[in-house]
Amino acid sequence: MSQFENVTLIKEANIYFDGKVTSRTVLFEDGTKRTLGIMLPGDYEFSTSLKEEMEILAGNLDYKLAGEDWETIEGSGVFYVPANETFQLKVHSVVDYCCSYLTE
Amino acid sequence: MSQFENVTLIKEANIYFDGKVTSRTVLFEDGTKRTLGIMLPGDYEFSTSLKEEMEILAGNLDYKLAGEDWETIEGSGVFYVPANETFQLKVHSVVDYCCSYLTE
Repeated sequence: MSQFENVTLIKEANIYFDGKVTSRTVLFEDGTKRTLGIMLPGDYEFSTSLKEEMEILAGNLDYKLAGEDWETIEGSGVFYVPANETFQLKVHSVVDYCCSYLTE
Repeated sequence: MSQFENVTLIKEANIYFDGKVTSRTVLFEDGTKRTLGIMLPGDYEFSTSLKEEMEILAGNLDYKLAGEDWETIEGSGVFYVPANETFQLKVHSVVDYCCSYLTE
């Protein structure tokens, strides 16, 4: 088990796709933000404003960045989505993830 | 939006009922623990070890404590479950909750 210390946690959840994707917002002392979330099986499309690091803590999915081929993550892994881009996911199991919003 | 400050957040999610119920564990400076969770529609049964305060942040459900009648919460509300007891839930919408584990 890993953990974040001395953080601020927004109590209310972020809820998308009728609850199939949900997350909690975590604010860090250095001003950065992450979300810890769950995705249930399904196909999803998301858009970024900042660059995002998507760390898969558990679960299996395929992801597709704009202009790229589909890639697969099984169990754990990381991928990066440029700022102001749309990306697609095919989620095959319950996925536990941590999304970091990068200022570059 | 309300928030918890100066907390420790366990990164990995707690996942139950094939992802229909998930939560994150939050540890407080005073040694107490809470979980922030999501329940999707369905019928569930849980058991407590410590006394629990179940704060419904959003959503609609019915709950039944041992030996009591069914009660309804719509939108927001709180109920308490004694230690070492089983309780039942009928969740009618996506429910966002905060569970506090009380030492009495």
